[in-house]
Amino acid sequence: MTERNSIKRIAADLRNGSRTAVDVVQDSLSAAERLNPLHFSFITIISDLALAQAAMADDRRKYGKSRGPLDGIPYAAKDMFETRGVLTTGGSQVLKDNVPDRSAFVIRRLEEAGAILMGKTNQHEFAYGATGENGWSGTTVNPFDPTRLAGGSSGGSAAAVASGIVPFALGTDTGGSVRVPAALCGVAAFKPSFDRMSLEGVIPYCWSLDHAGVLANSVDDLELVTRHTMNLSSAGRPQTLRVGIVKNWAEKSESPVYEGFLAAKSALEMMGATFTEIELPDQGEARTVSLTIQLAETLSYHGPNLARARSCFGIDMLSGMALGQFLSAESYIHCKRMLEIYDRAFAETMKAVDVLLTPACPVTAPKVGTVNVDVGGQSLPVGNALTLFTSFFNLVGVPALVIPMHQDNSRLPVSVQLVGARDSDAELLAIACLLESALGDNYGAATYTPRLG
Amino acid sequence: MTERNSIKRIAADLRNGSRTAVDVVQDSLSAAERLNPLHFSFITIISDLALAQAAMADDRRKYGKSRGPLDGIPYAAKDMFETRGVLTTGGSQVLKDNVPDRSAFVIRRLEEAGAILMGKTNQHEFAYGATGENGWSGTTVNPFDPTRLAGGSSGGSAAAVASGIVPFALGTDTGGSVRVPAALCGVAAFKPSFDRMSLEGVIPYCWSLDHAGVLANSVDDLELVTRHTMNLSSAGRPQTLRVGIVKNWAEKSESPVYEGFLAAKSALEMMGATFTEIELPDQGEARTVSLTIQLAETLSYHGPNLARARSCFGIDMLSGMALGQFLSAESYIHCKRMLEIYDRAFAETMKAVDVLLTPACPVTAPKVGTVNVDVGGQSLPVGNALTLFTSFFNLVGVPALVIPMHQDNSRLPVSVQLVGARDSDAELLAIACLLESALGDNYGAATYTPRLG
Repeated sequence: MTERNSIKRIAADLRNGSRTAVDVVQDSLSAAERLNPLHFSFITIISDLALAQAAMADDRRKYGKSRGPLDGIPYAAKDMFETRGVLTTGGSQVLKDNVPDRSAFVIRRLEEAGAILMGKTNQHEFAYGATGENGWSGTTVNPFDPTRLAGGSSGGSAAAVASGIVPFALGTDTGGSVRVPAALCGVAAFKPSFDRMSLEGVIPYCWSLDHAGVLANSVDDLELVTRHTMNLSSAGRPQTLRVGIVKNWAEKSESPVYEGFLAAKSALEMMGATFTEIELPDQGEARTVSLTIQLAETLSYHGPNLARARSCFGIDMLSGMALGQFLSAESYIHCKRMLEIYDRAFAETMKAVDVLLTPACPVTAPKVGTVNVDVGGQSLPVGNALTLFTSFFNLVGVPALVIPMHQDNSRLPVSVQLVGARDSDAELLAIACLLESALGDNYGAATYTPRLG
Repeated sequence: MTERNSIKRIAADLRNGSRTAVDVVQDSLSAAERLNPLHFSFITIISDLALAQAAMADDRRKYGKSRGPLDGIPYAAKDMFETRGVLTTGGSQVLKDNVPDRSAFVIRRLEEAGAILMGKTNQHEFAYGATGENGWSGTTVNPFDPTRLAGGSSGGSAAAVASGIVPFALGTDTGGSVRVPAALCGVAAFKPSFDRMSLEGVIPYCWSLDHAGVLANSVDDLELVTRHTMNLSSAGRPQTLRVGIVKNWAEKSESPVYEGFLAAKSALEMMGATFTEIELPDQGEARTVSLTIQLAETLSYHGPNLARARSCFGIDMLSGMALGQFLSAESYIHCKRMLEIYDRAFAETMKAVDVLLTPACPVTAPKVGTVNVDVGGQSLPVGNALTLFTSFFNLVGVPALVIPMHQDNSRLPVSVQLVGARDSDAELLAIACLLESALGDNYGAATYTPRLG
């Protein structure tokens, strides 16, 4: 069993010399090699190169040239991120031989900081899906129960962090693809405001809604990685803590999820928060808006490969692109214009509160192969159920953060989501850090460990 | 007959007291009332309000509170610009009763500068068309020959300036709608870089390609108005004058147009310019890209009125919207992505030159009712022919300016176009001012006058 490590703990070990970067990378590597056949969290594991980089990190430290807190820290990146000299498939057979000659912007930033890429994580094909099921690369399963989904599309990144292989990982999030697997696997995750963390060098899925994001074991670690991968202002201690609660979201969640939500709410209350019930625009319509934009844009990007490589696509992409062909320019433009309407309405809503508190996902990890899920008495397609509380915040491009609310190892993870106003990324992280401290040892990723094979 | 006035000449008259703003507005008003039944350049003429504003301008001047060079200067605005308390139809029966309660941003800026709105000019319905023909509001005809087109869609603005009713006017330009009528009517015109002159409060036609623009009697006047309607940096005297000539454009133009082009080229040569032949991307494809985006966006905006007011739309809008309904989201997105490709390619091209010189329009004003036009031995639909040299520069969002190259009153106007790199608006205006000076009295709008009814 691999003990889960925080970045700050590893960094302290490296500083005080109790471990070397080579030790850390060796541990990460052996965990990956042992667990990957069980969880399918990686498409590619990097060994020799990672060990060589670890040796260089140790050399830098020895000669007083350490690059800072991420130097020598292993991490993983979803296979949507292009990596120089390393296979980048986007989770698709279509790109099974794709080795880019340049790394994505965020990967380059982490390389400059000395972080060590351990591998490319498994995902729903080209990010189109929230379950993480993949007929070509294998389905990432949940480290807490391998008969259950890790979620998607960044399922491999969530499982790799949850099982302790790496202390953090990169993902992408178009409707919840970072936050949903984080919630199902019990790790923390952050999706910044739209266009704040660069997507340069990331395979597009739906550029109107795509966001890069980070998964880690704590909000503290998320904040550290975010500082290295995007520009983040400094936020002081919040002056007020006005929390918005979305009407009828928490109540319709599964009871363990609802309990986790109530526990977070109590902690906020103890911190002096005031609560206001808020309403969001019709979520059925918003889901159609999201889906229309996703199908149209992904068809535009991946459609040209249909003729040459139809048989390489999985069933989800094929049916999505087939549907996309029936969408009119008029409906696409209508949906793009709806984004502006949602944007204005949500900005107005956020004038009255500093942050929203919601469950991250209405259910705990469903079984692999689940088709429909019951949410508050209504049967929903599994993908819709999993992203029920996440996808609207891609439409409005606001920062959103997932905090695990787990109590013991015998139960499946549950999580809450904190959401801020557009571009209030630093403020949201500051509030989330306070909440994490208030929750203490009773909750959070760091306090529990999956029962691993 | 109305003598054509430059803004600066009127401003000088006002300063030295030889005329009052009331005199100027009275003259403008009587010209409008006399000429409008002949040219149909206005949908709405403003009389009492304009005279009252003129009296206020005179008062300000009297008490030393003049607002500057535009205070007391009459102007006209295309009926796409919303005007508080004044009918704004967009040239369409659909909006025949539309009286906005707020003016467009540019109108407000001109109001603050003391300029006096004399009326709302006629146009192709909702800017969809380059001929200026309009079955509802009447077709604006060319002041030089009322059997010929003024061009469009901002035909009324061009005719109002050309016939001396106002010294400047506002228009909009999505494929050439400011520059084409300016060229056919022999006035100067400027379409700034995309998004540089605000379209707030302007009825949208196609927001990916729409630009606001100005028509006047000289580049000098264009520069003055532009300084009041958008932020314009200062440009010194250009250090180099490297002129790009688009391969095979001038040669295929009508001979008077070609002669005008050669005269401008000679003037630039005398100024020390060097010339490079450049090529643009396939213009057939570019035209399809432009049309696809136009039809899709205008359907998205105006489509909701089809059900309630189908019979109010003219034939051009009806057939455009009918075509638009067959466009797929995929083709629209493809065309939007082509804009980025054109953008990068054109930016690369403009590294080698400071400005492009082209004819503004390959032909002189066609007869009203013309269906096809011969350009270089090829028969083209009249709208395509008129915008042949203008529409690409909307796709790449670069500043473009039209200078009349007319020699005498017995011939129809011809014009050249100068085009700059994106956001080089100030530099382009500076070069155009130099060219205008070099051309001297032999060319330019100020040297000739249409034979008016």
